[in-house]
Amino acid sequence: MFESAELGHKIDKASFRKEVPKLRADLLDVQYDVLQKREFPVVILVSGVDGSGKGETINLLYSWMDPRHISTLAFSTPTDEERERPFMWRYWRALPPKGKVGIFAGSWYSLPIAERIAGTMRRSELDQRLDDINRFEAMLVNEGALVLKFWFHLSKDGQKKRLKALEKNPRTAWRVTKASYDRLKTYDKLQDVAGHVLRVSNTAHAPWIIVEGTDDEYRSLTVGRIVLESMKKRLQQDALVRVPVAPPIQRTIDEKNLLTELDLGHKLGKKDYERELAKYQGRLSELVRDPRFTARHSLVVVFEGADAAGKGGAIRRSVEAIDARQYQIIPIAAPTEEERAQPYLWRFWRHLPRTGRIGIFDRSWYGRVLVERVEGFCSEADWLRAYAEINDFEHQLAAAGAVVVKFWLQISADEQLRRFKERQDTEFKRFKITDEDWRNRDKWDQYVTAVCDMVDRTSTGLAPWTLVEANDKNFARVKVLQTLCERIEAAIRGEGETK
Amino acid sequence: MFESAELGHKIDKASFRKEVPKLRADLLDVQYDVLQKREFPVVILVSGVDGSGKGETINLLYSWMDPRHISTLAFSTPTDEERERPFMWRYWRALPPKGKVGIFAGSWYSLPIAERIAGTMRRSELDQRLDDINRFEAMLVNEGALVLKFWFHLSKDGQKKRLKALEKNPRTAWRVTKASYDRLKTYDKLQDVAGHVLRVSNTAHAPWIIVEGTDDEYRSLTVGRIVLESMKKRLQQDALVRVPVAPPIQRTIDEKNLLTELDLGHKLGKKDYERELAKYQGRLSELVRDPRFTARHSLVVVFEGADAAGKGGAIRRSVEAIDARQYQIIPIAAPTEEERAQPYLWRFWRHLPRTGRIGIFDRSWYGRVLVERVEGFCSEADWLRAYAEINDFEHQLAAAGAVVVKFWLQISADEQLRRFKERQDTEFKRFKITDEDWRNRDKWDQYVTAVCDMVDRTSTGLAPWTLVEANDKNFARVKVLQTLCERIEAAIRGEGETK
Repeated sequence: MFESAELGHKIDKASFRKEVPKLRADLLDVQYDVLQKREFPVVILVSGVDGSGKGETINLLYSWMDPRHISTLAFSTPTDEERERPFMWRYWRALPPKGKVGIFAGSWYSLPIAERIAGTMRRSELDQRLDDINRFEAMLVNEGALVLKFWFHLSKDGQKKRLKALEKNPRTAWRVTKASYDRLKTYDKLQDVAGHVLRVSNTAHAPWIIVEGTDDEYRSLTVGRIVLESMKKRLQQDALVRVPVAPPIQRTIDEKNLLTELDLGHKLGKKDYERELAKYQGRLSELVRDPRFTARHSLVVVFEGADAAGKGGAIRRSVEAIDARQYQIIPIAAPTEEERAQPYLWRFWRHLPRTGRIGIFDRSWYGRVLVERVEGFCSEADWLRAYAEINDFEHQLAAAGAVVVKFWLQISADEQLRRFKERQDTEFKRFKITDEDWRNRDKWDQYVTAVCDMVDRTSTGLAPWTLVEANDKNFARVKVLQTLCERIEAAIRGEGETK
Repeated sequence: MFESAELGHKIDKASFRKEVPKLRADLLDVQYDVLQKREFPVVILVSGVDGSGKGETINLLYSWMDPRHISTLAFSTPTDEERERPFMWRYWRALPPKGKVGIFAGSWYSLPIAERIAGTMRRSELDQRLDDINRFEAMLVNEGALVLKFWFHLSKDGQKKRLKALEKNPRTAWRVTKASYDRLKTYDKLQDVAGHVLRVSNTAHAPWIIVEGTDDEYRSLTVGRIVLESMKKRLQQDALVRVPVAPPIQRTIDEKNLLTELDLGHKLGKKDYERELAKYQGRLSELVRDPRFTARHSLVVVFEGADAAGKGGAIRRSVEAIDARQYQIIPIAAPTEEERAQPYLWRFWRHLPRTGRIGIFDRSWYGRVLVERVEGFCSEADWLRAYAEINDFEHQLAAAGAVVVKFWLQISADEQLRRFKERQDTEFKRFKITDEDWRNRDKWDQYVTAVCDMVDRTSTGLAPWTLVEANDKNFARVKVLQTLCERIEAAIRGEGETK
């Protein structure tokens, strides 16, 4: 893996000085083109052995480009806000927006490598983590990002020499600490683990770039040229390079589907409803205050459903049982400017609840495979890959202790019509029917197909869909509350644990 | 203060049931009007004695309005990310955007009251804090916010009864803890402190609303009506109600001003420059890694100056001495959609560095009193009040340990013209001159006035301005670096401490 990076690569200072002015001018040029177009972010990972020039390389990029449009994120001990969310949350919140350059000094690779060297992570866990990382990077590339992963290498002997040299120079001596020398001792172990990590994560869409770190001029010029050429190439690229995804599902040829098979005749009379509502609200109220929930879990609830299916009412009946200080309802509308400058899932990541808290999404990330698919707001490739991305996302949520509960509220076309008409006559403005609602009705069949695909592809053991027969509001509300209770109870009993 | 809230106010259940449907419909209506207009946020503070119905009132507002456009923020122990920023940071980040309702369960009043009761805050400190709060709320109101501050009151005897009643009902028993009974013992102390706090912070723009908490129906109806009427009134209000501010400064009648008196002839030869640059870069590099800095301080640097005054170059020479992982450069451009939905200073609060970190603002909050004033992007009332708001902001920064360093880079009109022409001929795209740059030149005199006012009004002991003679770039860069070093050194020595 590292053979070509132990050849003692060198550039003499004269050639270096000759090439640098043109390289700097070109880098600035291309940075400004990227900034002006605002079409993709540049994500640069800087990793490698100690003393191999990681910090120097970052500082160099700052001095060669316009530092005002670069951000560097260093990740040390996670803050408590980070610890109470999935592992990748801190990296998501640090992603640069389109047009900007984000340098990750220490990245999603650092912790797995460190834990594997320390022996606190099993090989199988590491491989699972690498699998997650590969899919995360594929998502970034599919979203348009230019991902450059640098690994700076030194031979064992070379590392010793570099540390001595850094120590001698008063301007760099501070970079060398006792930990640096300690890490010399684990050099072989690092090579072993890093070799494995780099092999497994050396994907077609986000390959590793291994650079010999011994000679400052060689390392600097290599990185500068690669950053320049990659940004240029990405700018010229007409269409997105897509990581292949599974094709659409073959539909059955008869008339049966998940929604036709629902019994929308379920009903609950007023008295039964009031008894059941009180029962499950009471139970939910206790469950969300149970220390076994608040200390280890969070609750993420997704409400999706046809227009007028009663999402608002079901949400309201559910939260009645919960103290307003413990939950947040996140209504999903069109993404904001800042959200549009980020990968699709970014705007949901930012609202994830902390441990002990509850996030209720009124519409959700499933918009991608529902309205965006049906209305053609995104390409087929985009919504097709969304299934797997969403599964990854929810898997990470579950792994971090979140109880993920997803509701699809289904009503019949006739019942929808009845409710539309009723709403048009009501005095509450909130029930105003828009033209869009009527237009969506015309696409009923397309939505049915989209919903069936969605459930087939994203109902997982850790985050199953609950289809709710919602022609009768009473029945629907009680089913939602009962499901919430059961899912939290299962989590408290330790079911569905992934770690 | 609380006399009218101990009269045993009561509403019979029948009247309550009769009024509620209309009230709910009206509340929904007005909430939707506010949401559609997106002109102002509704900030509701819910405070008062234990057992007075704070939680119930919040839940009630959720059930009477559309819960999807309300957020409730509860503030318990600050997270470590919050602790490493000024006291108000956690409240700023929780402010609702225009169009939405934000309920603060526990607010900026909670901690001062609790600390005063516990005796860990002196009366003089409390009064200073209340002064800060009053100015903060004035800012909110000036920015358009509707601020409703509820205080729920119970007599001592009433509190005991309420706690017993809550305990008896299994649905509410969990609200009563040992702490609730402990607080019964400090009832008199609370009344004393709260009485003082409410008196001092009962301002014309954000008055307190005291509500007797004994009777559920009375309390609910009172709050519902007040919220409704206040939102209606705010919607009808044509112009913003402005808290008065000091008028513009009377200019001197001769030709002298802060900028004309600068000696722009200062120069530094190449050799001197290189020696001084190395010296101060070295010193800065050590200072920002000094544990006395990293453990207690952050560094907030503001760069302002005429176009082409050399801000970019000065920033670059400064950060060369610092590890890229420790600082963030924040280039200030037009606010994003999310930022425009918040008070003016919000977009700067969100970028404040943590303890041990450095935030460098390339242009800053001073845009309000510079470009926005000169170009008429905001009203005179807006930029006039900005001086005091900015001073408050920087005072809070300094109080939290930030070293605030502000540079104004000044060049002569002739030098600017020379640089503009030079830039037009350069090959680097980054130096493109826009029409706007030429237009700004025509307003030179207006900018001079704005700069002089700015320095006069915002150069404070804790956050002084440094005017930099920048006709000679070498001189300017060294002066910037030297100033940064001196200010950090002073902070390390404990000068400029406010607590």
